[in-house]
Amino acid sequence: MKKNLNLTMVTDFYEITMANGYFKAGMGDDIAYFDMFFRRIPDGGGMAIMAGLEQVVDYLNDLHFTDDDIEFLREKKCFDESFLECLKDFKFQCDVWAVPEGTVIFPGEPIITVRGPMIQAQFIETMVLLQVNHQSLIATKANRIVRAAKGRGVMEFGTRRAHGVSAAVNGARAAYIGGCVGTACTVSDEQYGINALGTMAHSWVQMHSCEYEAFRRYAEIYPQNCVLLVDTYDVLRSGVPNAIRVFKELDPPSKGIRIDSGDVSYLTKKAREMLDEAGFEDCKIVVSNSLDENIIKEVIDEGACIDSFGVGERLITAGSEPVFGGVYKLAALEKDGEIIPKIKISENVGKITNPGFKTLYRLFDNDTGRAVADLITLHDEPVPAGDGFEIFDPDAVWKRKRLRNFTAKNLRVQLFDKGRQVYELPSIEEIKAHCKEEIDSMWDEMLRFENPQTYYVDLSQKLYDMKARLIEENSHE
Amino acid sequence: MKKNLNLTMVTDFYEITMANGYFKAGMGDDIAYFDMFFRRIPDGGGMAIMAGLEQVVDYLNDLHFTDDDIEFLREKKCFDESFLECLKDFKFQCDVWAVPEGTVIFPGEPIITVRGPMIQAQFIETMVLLQVNHQSLIATKANRIVRAAKGRGVMEFGTRRAHGVSAAVNGARAAYIGGCVGTACTVSDEQYGINALGTMAHSWVQMHSCEYEAFRRYAEIYPQNCVLLVDTYDVLRSGVPNAIRVFKELDPPSKGIRIDSGDVSYLTKKAREMLDEAGFEDCKIVVSNSLDENIIKEVIDEGACIDSFGVGERLITAGSEPVFGGVYKLAALEKDGEIIPKIKISENVGKITNPGFKTLYRLFDNDTGRAVADLITLHDEPVPAGDGFEIFDPDAVWKRKRLRNFTAKNLRVQLFDKGRQVYELPSIEEIKAHCKEEIDSMWDEMLRFENPQTYYVDLSQKLYDMKARLIEENSHE
Repeated sequence: MKKNLNLTMVTDFYEITMANGYFKAGMGDDIAYFDMFFRRIPDGGGMAIMAGLEQVVDYLNDLHFTDDDIEFLREKKCFDESFLECLKDFKFQCDVWAVPEGTVIFPGEPIITVRGPMIQAQFIETMVLLQVNHQSLIATKANRIVRAAKGRGVMEFGTRRAHGVSAAVNGARAAYIGGCVGTACTVSDEQYGINALGTMAHSWVQMHSCEYEAFRRYAEIYPQNCVLLVDTYDVLRSGVPNAIRVFKELDPPSKGIRIDSGDVSYLTKKAREMLDEAGFEDCKIVVSNSLDENIIKEVIDEGACIDSFGVGERLITAGSEPVFGGVYKLAALEKDGEIIPKIKISENVGKITNPGFKTLYRLFDNDTGRAVADLITLHDEPVPAGDGFEIFDPDAVWKRKRLRNFTAKNLRVQLFDKGRQVYELPSIEEIKAHCKEEIDSMWDEMLRFENPQTYYVDLSQKLYDMKARLIEENSHE
Repeated sequence: MKKNLNLTMVTDFYEITMANGYFKAGMGDDIAYFDMFFRRIPDGGGMAIMAGLEQVVDYLNDLHFTDDDIEFLREKKCFDESFLECLKDFKFQCDVWAVPEGTVIFPGEPIITVRGPMIQAQFIETMVLLQVNHQSLIATKANRIVRAAKGRGVMEFGTRRAHGVSAAVNGARAAYIGGCVGTACTVSDEQYGINALGTMAHSWVQMHSCEYEAFRRYAEIYPQNCVLLVDTYDVLRSGVPNAIRVFKELDPPSKGIRIDSGDVSYLTKKAREMLDEAGFEDCKIVVSNSLDENIIKEVIDEGACIDSFGVGERLITAGSEPVFGGVYKLAALEKDGEIIPKIKISENVGKITNPGFKTLYRLFDNDTGRAVADLITLHDEPVPAGDGFEIFDPDAVWKRKRLRNFTAKNLRVQLFDKGRQVYELPSIEEIKAHCKEEIDSMWDEMLRFENPQTYYVDLSQKLYDMKARLIEENSHE
């Protein structure tokens, strides 16, 4: 990737052919509303975590076409010259609302809404999806792994298997939001302040005349973070005994061993015994061998003696399901100040979009503080309130429920007002803390890995009725 | 990701702790040899495709630490001040050999070898792996998909589901090397000259008062690439009839329809009938709905009428197996001009490394032009030649074969000589053409998707004996 890559050009080519089309048709400045939402939670999980918004904000603040970009487009010989001229002054002018990073999100919810001139609101589709799909995927996966570790630290170790540089750097960011305690990726620390850690590879051991010498030298140089990799030759016959010998000789204040291969349960139990017998109860055991939430859960259940995990390829690629299927769909047009809702019909009922300009609420039970349901309303409906407020399942309208003693929270914030950023980006630590609070507000039944309880995402009666009417109007015989 | 990201800092933190360690131990300038190799072909395939080298070369040419980088490292408070001073003048000085991009590669082969000062040869591990793992993964997956399409064009459509910007941009590059005809990603065209194409989203149709009007306007603006998306409302009742109406009225020179949902086999057969009956045999049918090599193979077998495919998320994420497990291991040290081979033992026999400074040959049958086997030798062995040259399976040494009338080709080229680039990077078109030639030189049995024939990657007798001796020497009772 060249250094001068302009993120504005990271866009599906059809965004530009459509933009040129709207321009030529004189529709470019008509106001359109687009929603980003996703349809499926990866890994069959009960909830997902929003991430990637900071990168969307950076992108939108920097939207522009360089002379080189415009010349490149000119040479494609399919764009109007006056359209290309117009791109010189392209400046983002839309309104944007979004669910903040770290928030728990569910299928069908408008996690981002963009309102603005048709050309612009359409154009940004590709990058908005790319950033939010990527980081939400990784944050959601990381959170599963972190929850499986039951309080033990999880480090993100996947840089070398990431799908390119941004997958590594922003993937480490998303993993941190999802609950990881740090990363191996140095530049993610430099750029985002995510603590980077790392000690030695097998080659460190091989470079020395013997394992003992390699360990001893390391302990001399890094007594404050003396984690020795004990599986270069043989964990129990060579690695752990050499580590113990060095700990005895030098007594570094911070001791640890890392095991990167073999049967984790057996090896960590035996290693723990050996370390304890030698008087090193304070020595931590780190494990890092093709882990994911399922393996972590199993080895903990087996009684493996592990203090922390390093998780690589299966986290940074979300290996078990590497796609977060967020989409960006037209929800409404504005004509003379009136909002005209738009719908996309599909033979698959689940793929029919929610029309109109909407607001997203989360309803919390005041007694428990837990989330009860999310509610999508039209933007001009009152905030849900009042004892006996009725919600219903839009897929089974006879399932109705009256809520008492609840609080509705608008889940979305406004990021941009006519192209001007009006949202102060939270720090990475704030986002991470918010994510933890969010998880804590969910019911355990939803956090289960297998067959979690489905959370209710309901539509207001008004939105439901509008949707039904539009389906009727747009259906073909 | 900040704009000023220095790729040198995209590195696992342990590369820096080790570098500082070698520096302090006075070992930093000792000469080491590292090999990159991989252990498993994704998706159980018969071969993989090398890609990502251009990005490795760019990275190595630009290796440097900025003052900010050094200050960041200083604040970690674990590095020697004289080491940090030394980083100011860090300049790449290694020799590098590699298999060129587009070449077919197999597990266990030294696809990259780096020789140079220990600090440097170790330090570059993370980025070398990241770039080659990512692009080889995507090129290999793309090639499977392209082969499944049996001559029909495959477009890369996955930008919005890629794992960040570089996954999209370099993923499109790798997909092109693997045989795709183009991409939707505009900037990949601008940066790498990979033809970017795209027409309309569903929103284009929804923005207009009706589908017919949307199609007609598009045909007026883009008669040279008039591909109409026909599934916004109903493919056969609305989309195709409206497309035919517009084709009749305006007769654009290049006609096409795209179907993005529903049963592809049924819909394309019916659509083909309708188009042909209307006299538009020249209208192409493009399909783009969650495709991969298996679905493409099946719908072609079912007789679906498809001229080309747009493949998104399952290509750009290599969805079925999103990890290319390349590793980077110490192979030798150099002491007073003598090469001392190094080995990494593992309880898993397949994970034991091949020691020494090696050369990689492919042996071609002169009669058929097809590849017979690959042979890894030590660097100072003669080029394999001669009637009756014997090769054997290192996992089953009794399986021996004498070759006659063959030609051995050294698969690797030298990229860097003491840090100076000595290899002229081929153009993307040359790489793509090379990949096609490579595939054509393989036996069909190896190209099968399920249970392909395993290709022979043999060791020379000399290398085999050295490996056996080192295993013996390094084993523990």
